[in-house]
Amino acid sequence: MTTASTSRLLADLEGAGELIADPDVLASYRADQAAPGLLEAGMPAVVVRPRRTAEVQAAVRAAARHGVPIVPRGAGSGLAGGANAIDGCVVLSTELMTGIVGLDAASLTATVQPGLVNAHLGDAAKQHGLWYAPDPASYAFSTIGGNVATNAGGLCCVKHGVTRDALLGLELVLADGRAVRVGRRTRKGVAGYDLVSLVCGSEGTLAIVTEATVRLLPAPPPGATLAASFAGLGDAGRAIARIVRSTTPAMLELMDRTTIAAVEAMAPQGLDQDVEVLVFARSDLPGAAALEEVERMASWCESEGATLAVVTDEEAEGRMLTAARRLAYSALERQGATLLDDVCVPLGAIPALLEGIEAIAARHDVLIGTFGHAGDGNMHPTVVYDRGDPDAVARARAAFAAIVALALELGGTIAGEHGIGLLKHGLLGDELGAAHDLHRQIKHALDPAGLLNPGKGI
Amino acid sequence: MTTASTSRLLADLEGAGELIADPDVLASYRADQAAPGLLEAGMPAVVVRPRRTAEVQAAVRAAARHGVPIVPRGAGSGLAGGANAIDGCVVLSTELMTGIVGLDAASLTATVQPGLVNAHLGDAAKQHGLWYAPDPASYAFSTIGGNVATNAGGLCCVKHGVTRDALLGLELVLADGRAVRVGRRTRKGVAGYDLVSLVCGSEGTLAIVTEATVRLLPAPPPGATLAASFAGLGDAGRAIARIVRSTTPAMLELMDRTTIAAVEAMAPQGLDQDVEVLVFARSDLPGAAALEEVERMASWCESEGATLAVVTDEEAEGRMLTAARRLAYSALERQGATLLDDVCVPLGAIPALLEGIEAIAARHDVLIGTFGHAGDGNMHPTVVYDRGDPDAVARARAAFAAIVALALELGGTIAGEHGIGLLKHGLLGDELGAAHDLHRQIKHALDPAGLLNPGKGI
Repeated sequence: MTTASTSRLLADLEGAGELIADPDVLASYRADQAAPGLLEAGMPAVVVRPRRTAEVQAAVRAAARHGVPIVPRGAGSGLAGGANAIDGCVVLSTELMTGIVGLDAASLTATVQPGLVNAHLGDAAKQHGLWYAPDPASYAFSTIGGNVATNAGGLCCVKHGVTRDALLGLELVLADGRAVRVGRRTRKGVAGYDLVSLVCGSEGTLAIVTEATVRLLPAPPPGATLAASFAGLGDAGRAIARIVRSTTPAMLELMDRTTIAAVEAMAPQGLDQDVEVLVFARSDLPGAAALEEVERMASWCESEGATLAVVTDEEAEGRMLTAARRLAYSALERQGATLLDDVCVPLGAIPALLEGIEAIAARHDVLIGTFGHAGDGNMHPTVVYDRGDPDAVARARAAFAAIVALALELGGTIAGEHGIGLLKHGLLGDELGAAHDLHRQIKHALDPAGLLNPGKGI
Repeated sequence: MTTASTSRLLADLEGAGELIADPDVLASYRADQAAPGLLEAGMPAVVVRPRRTAEVQAAVRAAARHGVPIVPRGAGSGLAGGANAIDGCVVLSTELMTGIVGLDAASLTATVQPGLVNAHLGDAAKQHGLWYAPDPASYAFSTIGGNVATNAGGLCCVKHGVTRDALLGLELVLADGRAVRVGRRTRKGVAGYDLVSLVCGSEGTLAIVTEATVRLLPAPPPGATLAASFAGLGDAGRAIARIVRSTTPAMLELMDRTTIAAVEAMAPQGLDQDVEVLVFARSDLPGAAALEEVERMASWCESEGATLAVVTDEEAEGRMLTAARRLAYSALERQGATLLDDVCVPLGAIPALLEGIEAIAARHDVLIGTFGHAGDGNMHPTVVYDRGDPDAVARARAAFAAIVALALELGGTIAGEHGIGLLKHGLLGDELGAAHDLHRQIKHALDPAGLLNPGKGI
């Protein structure tokens, strides 16, 4: 963009909220947290920080008049490059839109602005004895708008659902600047198409979310926790299969030997490093039923060969047992540069996925730490590599591609909960096949000029 | 349609499956179960009964070439006129597409053809110790395709979700005859737009479903049951509010005095006819936790003024306690012609909805029996009227319209789970407002000629 055209754009963004044009500050809005250094991240012409819907409309209309792409951004904590800027674009940051518009405790709903941090919504719900269930690992800093854009999952979603399941209604600003409400405030409803789900997970490519109405749940009881260790992938895989066929735990996670070693190196937990896989589970059934449920899970683990299975209904002890799992990704990041994957396979294919990842690590001579959501088949194999070694970078990329291909081969998907963004944009056609065109028809119907976050998602 | 053009259409439907052109048989495909006599139901030119996807494609392509509308139909058990025919149309009946393509017990998924009856899927799952959760009242005869078309709910969905929540993937035939797969076989996934949810509930207006992949769950334990009676709407409303704020029951239903009297008249259950509202709840927690949960619910009912609260963990007794609720609609149908509504309000507005319905019945001098899903605010107020009396028909229609308006006023929706169909087609704009155009843009993008079930849904 020329300086003159940028000046005209800035002038036209009057009424779109706070503007940032200082190049040093702009640079901090170039990228999200995905694969640093490996993905394109352009320099925005301007960052707009609207405070209300009308300002978002003004921003979208100005960008449309100038034919400039608009890249929406929440906390910038995305893991797929969905918020990475494009040279000369408008970055629309929701960071000033942090309000709770309303919390209706009697109806168990809350209506919030998109820049509200997930944990802050959780805190507000808690004051009414209620709970906002979706809990991506980033819940302490990621925003509801970002969670909606990626349809974020988390540890609770095996039982309580992903972001989409908690969403009842949205206010949207469309590519032409119209503001519309879709969905509703009720638990159920079939009037009109399910445009809430259509927009959820669309990574800012169909519309910009300016308000979200979510379902709250009664706060769960404290529950009980299980940690079980296995000497072999096969044993762990069978135990997981047994659990998911028999009950719906409130959490069912795993981490492998490489991840265990990384956690021990960062923050020693006294984990047994001879263990091949650690499995963590929780029950949030009321009263004694929680401990009974984790005891049942423990006995299934033992009968499938667990070397150790520990249960507790003490909250502090439960947190200690699962602390290692929550440290998994940061521990792997300490080991080098990381390429974090997010594949998801049918439940029956989890053992094959774990074994396949091990084979890929050997074949490409890379370190892969695998952790993730065993209860829904969504795994985060993380390739750890040396950024300074071009050969290592190439091997890491090859291993990453091989994992994605393996997931598809096993009937799975290339993205469970992090989104497609830039990271997997080139791979999407492999999954969608003939349906890719249908996606483009819908994109074109809603954003004919293609200015909403182009090059991301579909 | 002229005889000549019908003959050309029939000839062109070669390869689209079995054809029915006998006028007497065609007549039985004119309408579904919605408001008999009150909704338009045209005479189809032909009924096609495809057996496989390629035959559906052939039917859609032939209809497109002839510019003839195509009306998809499952069991014809819909309650909104979504399957009502249009003069000269092609009715595409899925009644021969009843196959279970695959059931993957290890992955807890099943892939089925759209004409499979809901209960038959349930039976197949049961053989593997698994469960298909969505249970519309019509589960014994309605089809999975019809359930998908309307996003059918049911008694279990307060805890276990509606049809959409159980859907993982779909095979679709689009308006131009292309067949595509959307969604996936995994529990989670964010690759591409959520076109599964877009099509679910779209009443055959966007595409024709030729295959559905659904999530199965572990079979629930037998559970426990509560029935509680209340002398006033206010007491029952407060008890329901208390329950939904505190726990997530596996079922939470109510029926009012008029419905109780209708059930007693049809099949005496020994119900106390002085009672104003009966509330039914179930828990499907494991072991003793189920009885404990219904006991907690019973104590909340009692502290809000229940005149009686009975609990049991005996299965047969539980079935007896809830039998009345399952008879509600057929009992009201015995009282006269019925206009069955399907409004849904935010949980906090349930008491206001119940009181408002009572006032509407008095104001319009009509009999309204109300029953429904108290746990999610989805009520089925049913206006009972004398079909032979034009004044009674007019009053029934006015009361029906008033209930819908009341639901919107309370922040609710005009349709919780039955669909819009023809029945509420004229009312949809009142709910969608500015978003109605957005719906039309999507419809136009997917069906530019407007031949897929025109005049229904949006």
